[in-house]
Amino acid sequence: MSTSVRIIGTGLIGTSLGIALSSAGFAVTLEDPSPTAVRLARDLRAGSLATETDADPDIVVVGAPPDVTAQVVVDALSRWPHAVVTDVASVKESVLRDVLASGVDATRYVGSHPMAGRERSGAAAARGDLFDGRAWVVVPHPDTTEESVRRVRELALAVGAAVRVMPAHEHDEAVAAVSHVPQLAASIVASCLRELPESAVGLAGQGLRDVTRIAASDPRLWTQILAGNAAAVRDVLRHVRDQVDDVVTALDGIVERDGAGSLGTLSHVLEAGNLGHARIPGKHGAAPAAYVVVSVVVPDEPGALARLLGDIGSAGINLEDLHLEHGLGQAVGVAEVSVVPASVEPLRTELARLGWRVHD
Amino acid sequence: MSTSVRIIGTGLIGTSLGIALSSAGFAVTLEDPSPTAVRLARDLRAGSLATETDADPDIVVVGAPPDVTAQVVVDALSRWPHAVVTDVASVKESVLRDVLASGVDATRYVGSHPMAGRERSGAAAARGDLFDGRAWVVVPHPDTTEESVRRVRELALAVGAAVRVMPAHEHDEAVAAVSHVPQLAASIVASCLRELPESAVGLAGQGLRDVTRIAASDPRLWTQILAGNAAAVRDVLRHVRDQVDDVVTALDGIVERDGAGSLGTLSHVLEAGNLGHARIPGKHGAAPAAYVVVSVVVPDEPGALARLLGDIGSAGINLEDLHLEHGLGQAVGVAEVSVVPASVEPLRTELARLGWRVHD
Repeated sequence: MSTSVRIIGTGLIGTSLGIALSSAGFAVTLEDPSPTAVRLARDLRAGSLATETDADPDIVVVGAPPDVTAQVVVDALSRWPHAVVTDVASVKESVLRDVLASGVDATRYVGSHPMAGRERSGAAAARGDLFDGRAWVVVPHPDTTEESVRRVRELALAVGAAVRVMPAHEHDEAVAAVSHVPQLAASIVASCLRELPESAVGLAGQGLRDVTRIAASDPRLWTQILAGNAAAVRDVLRHVRDQVDDVVTALDGIVERDGAGSLGTLSHVLEAGNLGHARIPGKHGAAPAAYVVVSVVVPDEPGALARLLGDIGSAGINLEDLHLEHGLGQAVGVAEVSVVPASVEPLRTELARLGWRVHD
Repeated sequence: MSTSVRIIGTGLIGTSLGIALSSAGFAVTLEDPSPTAVRLARDLRAGSLATETDADPDIVVVGAPPDVTAQVVVDALSRWPHAVVTDVASVKESVLRDVLASGVDATRYVGSHPMAGRERSGAAAARGDLFDGRAWVVVPHPDTTEESVRRVRELALAVGAAVRVMPAHEHDEAVAAVSHVPQLAASIVASCLRELPESAVGLAGQGLRDVTRIAASDPRLWTQILAGNAAAVRDVLRHVRDQVDDVVTALDGIVERDGAGSLGTLSHVLEAGNLGHARIPGKHGAAPAAYVVVSVVVPDEPGALARLLGDIGSAGINLEDLHLEHGLGQAVGVAEVSVVPASVEPLRTELARLGWRVHD
């Protein structure tokens, strides 16, 4: 008999999970305080609507907003005395603390954080492949049973995620640095653009776009996430503030022309950025240098890119990643083709032979 | 007779410009303190090596590091008493000030800043299409002759750039906000990753990758850029610091559980980020919402993406942008296809008819 899963909260994560689990053969039932949201999730094949007569689920996944997650988890543990309960909130220690403080039997509770998301929110933005190849952090606590961890791990693997197990405080400290402070930095940099003259924002390049992309994220959700991880975010943010202070002081020194050591401070901050950046694993969890980008000039006409990719496919070379850069109204674009290092030379040779203009 | 251009400094920008101008029919000669760099540039078809017997150039482009740019401009104005001289440094007011302070006849000097670059530097990273569709800021000063501005504008247009004319201080204030402070923010956020445990950096997602991409930039170059625009960068960075301070205080309040207004502060910063982000023009200079992304599931096998793009091309639909997202070792990837809004429905219908799995 297939594992039965109740998903409570059919937002982006809950609905995406429902789609992925349903297509993996799990029996998914859905509930959400919003009848519209839950029906949309059902129509997207995330599962069937929950009814009063449903049998008890094996696993409950709470996809509620962070500030009500603990309460919904506690309720679920009481409603279904044999079910394993997990949640997908982006913060884990505050949820765990509130669950334990409730006095409920928490041996069947194990936290989760699938490291997947989009700038868009809600069921409409859901994708069944949202978890494919993403990390899924499983967060047991000292009283969690082995069986509960096994159940949640199984569920994460079923949707293609890579499971990492760590305690709540370790998770929260990690995401403060790799997710929550970057969100704040993007928002703050973007907020500096509000009052700029039109001619100034017109100079925006790809660097600014990348740095601020996640500044488009949902403020309500992120207020709760930051508040739920306040201590860890504050600690990282103090480091950020100290460095910003150092740079402001260095720039003051340069402006006042008495800045001994000012250039050294600037250089140090930029070099530290190089070192930190080099630690980020590649998109696929591999080392950053695992793929090589080859740039190919592509005429801006229907079918040209298809011809290029046909030529790459015919050469038996697998694309690892592809990005097309278009010039503004120009006659050519540049396709940035990522391949494994061993494929670079065969790719260059073959494309050049077929008349493509190839750059490193 | 074709316009003759001397390029002094064959780094990324100088070499890319040489390639673009040569292929547009300009007669380009190259010089650089490094014999290796200038020969590489020549081999990349950026122009011919400068010799003692060259006729005087019509235009000189200085592509030297920011901290020596003014001196090289002054030397060029003296060496060639009839040439128009421009430079491509990322800061304009400090260069202009030093040029004027030298007492040279600066009527033939007009500053430039092509808004184009890469994380990689040097001639080897040069691309002839680097300026395609990018802004090229032309920065005259009160004594610049009309003819000099006309010459530089002509050169920018010849390489496909979109010319914007503005005074030096306006340029410097603009790039402080849209380029220099984002660079610092990326570097500082990345630097917070240096001491993290491996398990923590393993949780990095696309958001972090985007925010920190430019943290890989050259520290020597950026130290000079920031120092050259110290006052304007400091002013924007003070705003950043004030907001970081506000957020630290708000998080303190939440940790100490006496944070009246703390959530409001967080929410305000995130909303301000939304507003600032919405002002950034799209990649192609159009409004951010000009293209719609349609996601199509693509099997991870040679030729599959080519088949998809062939189907799109056969339907007569032009791709505006394309990004392929691969799941880690998964059987499918997701192609994010950007098209104009009017093409969305025809695209969805046609692809669904041909059996592709299409998401919004």
